[in-house]
This record gives sequence, C-alpha cells and structure tokens, in this order.
Amino acid sequence: MKLVRWGAVGAERPGLIAAGDGGLRDLSAHCADIRADLDFSALRGLDPASLPRVDGSPRLGVPVAAIGNVLCIGLNYRDHAAETGLALPGEPVVFSKHTGALAGPHDALTMPAGTAKLDWEVELAVLIGRPAWQIDESAALAHVAGYMTANDISARDWQMERGGQWIKGKSGPGFCPLGPYLVTADEIADPQSLPLWTEVNGVRKQNGSTKDMVFGVATIIAHLSHFMPLAAGDVILTGTPAGVGLGRGEFLGAGDIMEVGVHGLGRQRTLIA
Amino acid sequence: MKLVRWGAVGAERPGLIAAGDGGLRDLSAHCADIRADLDFSALRGLDPASLPRVDGSPRLGVPVAAIGNVLCIGLNYRDHAAETGLALPGEPVVFSKHTGALAGPHDALTMPAGTAKLDWEVELAVLIGRPAWQIDESAALAHVAGYMTANDISARDWQMERGGQWIKGKSGPGFCPLGPYLVTADEIADPQSLPLWTEVNGVRKQNGSTKDMVFGVATIIAHLSHFMPLAAGDVILTGTPAGVGLGRGEFLGAGDIMEVGVHGLGRQRTLIA
Repeated sequence: MKLVRWGAVGAERPGLIAAGDGGLRDLSAHCADIRADLDFSALRGLDPASLPRVDGSPRLGVPVAAIGNVLCIGLNYRDHAAETGLALPGEPVVFSKHTGALAGPHDALTMPAGTAKLDWEVELAVLIGRPAWQIDESAALAHVAGYMTANDISARDWQMERGGQWIKGKSGPGFCPLGPYLVTADEIADPQSLPLWTEVNGVRKQNGSTKDMVFGVATIIAHLSHFMPLAAGDVILTGTPAGVGLGRGEFLGAGDIMEVGVHGLGRQRTLIA
Repeated sequence: MKLVRWGAVGAERPGLIAAGDGGLRDLSAHCADIRADLDFSALRGLDPASLPRVDGSPRLGVPVAAIGNVLCIGLNYRDHAAETGLALPGEPVVFSKHTGALAGPHDALTMPAGTAKLDWEVELAVLIGRPAWQIDESAALAHVAGYMTANDISARDWQMERGGQWIKGKSGPGFCPLGPYLVTADEIADPQSLPLWTEVNGVRKQNGSTKDMVFGVATIIAHLSHFMPLAAGDVILTGTPAGVGLGRGEFLGAGDIMEVGVHGLGRQRTLIA
C-alpha cells in the first residue's frame, strides 16, 4: 500500500493512493491518522473503489504522524565518501536531525538566514514499526513498517564549520522532506536494489542505487539497536550516493527546484523560496 | 511550582509537590498531563491544600510528557573540557540523545550489554515552552518553561570508539533520567548560579556551579535556534562540570548507586542493575 497524509499543515488526514488508477482516496473513516504502529493488515483488506475519492490536488504532508527520532547514516555509499574527502567508516556513522526539519514532499523550503551552502542528499528512508533493542541482523527487517523517499537537506557550512557535530547542519525547518507516500514493507521485496536520483533545475546530479550502500538496511537497524532503543515511529535515513553539491562545489539558492526520487517510492519536488 | 508525573511507566499522572509540606498532590482533575505547552498560570492559582494527597511513595516518571528532542551541549565547562583532553569550543558543541533514553529520576538502569565505560554527567536541563527560530539572546529566556536536574549518562566506548558522532554513546535505555520535578521558570531567578554535584556510592565526584558554563543558557538557546526550530517540549542539557568517570579512569558497574543534584531542582538516585 501507498499511504499518505493530505491537507494543510497540522490538519492532515489519512489517505491511500489506489493501486489501480493512482487516485487519492480518503481513509478518515478507517483510521485516525497514518502512524508507524497502525495495523496495516486491517487497511489492506479495503477495496479502494469503496473509499471516497479526494478531488483536486491537495497538499501532501509528512506521510507518517508522530515521528519520534530522525536518525541518519553518514558516508554510506563509497562514491559519496570519496567525494567528501572523508574516510570510509568501519562502522555506520550515526547522527540525527531535529524533528522540526520534517516537511511534506512538495513543500517549499525557505532559504534560512545564515547559510550559503544549502545542499541535497537523496536517501532511502526506513520507518520502524515496532521496538528494537539489541536485535540481530537476521531479525532486523521484521521491524520495518515501510519505506519512503527522503532528502537529507544539509547546510554544509553549519555542518562542517560551526564547531560541532553534524546535527547543526541537518536540522533547519524543511530540511527533511519525506514522501510523497509511505510504501508498506510488504511491497519492497529487496530494499538493496532501488535506484535513486536527484535533479536540480532539471539537471541530473545524483544517480545511484541502494545496492551500493556500505552498510545495508538490516545491518543499520541491528547496529543502531545495539546503542539505542529503536521505537515505532523512528525514521532512519540510510545515506546518499555521490553527486551532492559539496562534491561539485555547487549549492542551492532562492528559485532553485530540487527533485529527488527513489524507484517505487515516488518523487519529491522542493522549491527553494 | 514543582510539577511531577507519578505512577507506573506509561501510566503516569500529573502531580504537584506542595510548597508548604513537600507532599505530593494529584493534579489529575486540573490537567491531563504535564506538558511543556501547558498553561502553568492556571495551575499556579490552585490552593495545594485543596488538592488530593497522594499517599505512599509512588514512582516518579519523566516530569514532562511528549518531549520532542533531547539536545545536548558538550564541553561547556572549562574544567570538564580540560579533563577530557579536548579543546574548549569556540561555539557550542551540539549533539542529541534518542528520546528512548528518557527515564524517571529514581528508575534503575540496566547495564547494557556491550559497554565497559558507563559514566555520569550531572547537568542543568532546560525545557522549551514555546517555539524559537533564529531568536536573539535577549529574548531567549522567555522561551523557557522550566528547569530540571538531568544526568547525561554516557557509554564512553560507544561515544568515542565506535566511529561516529556522540549520539551512539548517549542514547541507551535509561541514559537520560530527568527530574524529580520540573521547576517552572518563574522560580529560577538566575539559571547561572546553581550548584550541581554527583556522588557515586556516597563519594562526591562532581562539584560545580552553572556559573562556570562557557556558554550560558540564554546563549545556548539563541545559538540552537539559529540552526533548528526549537519547539515546546524540546529539552536542552547544558553540559557538565569536571569530575566525570572519563577524567578519573573510573566507570560504573552493576550495583553502583549514582546520585546527582542541582540546587533547587532536586536530586536523583540511579541504581545500576
């Protein structure tokens, strides 16, 4: 299933993208909101034709409500580590984004005062569906509720030149668009075979595949669970392939349009305002 | 006011420590829970004598529900930076803890598998009460809902020897006891004049004062707000003075009892189980 939250900021309602015609259907009669701990199997039995159509093109919000922690893996593609000039890590590099960075997949991003190095990072995002503490890699994928397209937008000057950990450059308002939809885990047979890409003003910048991750999704989940109690509603951004602005000496400015996509998980469009 | 949440894990109820006799009173009839965006002024008018007494000594939980992000400042006391061998930062060093680290002030902490360097850090915690984005230092303290005692418990091996950012060593279950109570901001005339201390098995280990912070509370809030949209329910741990285990070559083991306190904000007692 492809699940969405549609409507104005703070007033989103649950919805579903119908597999047949790709149209938006209202799920308000069947669940209060889309949450990581929702019983998806109950929704799976619904006939999309029986659900109310939503007319027009309403705003799409963050596809999941009540996201607890946004955890990120750094330097997780060999070609990206090389372009940053940083060594390939022996274990996953973990950092986080403030939850205030979360945004809908087509929301505009206001260029924040104080940065001149705004950058893109297309990523596969994983939604944790049930608690995981010190679990084995073999059990890890059973804790995944679904997958989303993500953009780990970064202010490189804040990340690298302000005396500290990466969270400073990863957490501005709108720095974490998710969606357009949550694809439930049962529909992604192999999270390690998904092409992903970025275009800025129509020009292809990133072109990779999740098969090139240094640490795969199951390894990442098991690793994180060794150090912190993962909970339903946590989101993990799994790293980005080569082609970011930092490696190219190119950064975003007002008026630029950034589009990112992961195969099967949909595309985002973010205007820098 | 001193506000608490009392009862079993996940079933806490709101309460108040009466200024007169220090007894616990039930606030369930006046608010659903203690939250950062609660209208404290409505509670302030209540006569504690009119509130139901809570008998016995129930467990105390995290004093505030719905904490969004746990943000931490590193190396924020000169003597602590010196003992770690790290340079004094030119700007606040920012990292975060997973929210699954939160615990009540007297909850036991189960020594997690895989660390041999569990350590203590008494800190002044600040609860943000209303949103703050790129605000000035002069306005910062008006965004504070209250203050709490905190212990930024750290697995130094996970923090420093596992190839990444500090969040890895700061996020285990129970690594962030808060409380015993939330003291509302109106009762703390000057957050930069509070003695704070740690004892392990009755021996004094840390003995400092918030007057020795490198960056004070107002500076920290304004600085953080430059990079991330602080929200009601965010908690900021403001750093620890000298005397941590890392500096002494001493770490915690099963059976140890760690007590930490901040003057006016109460003391915690944590058994390592």
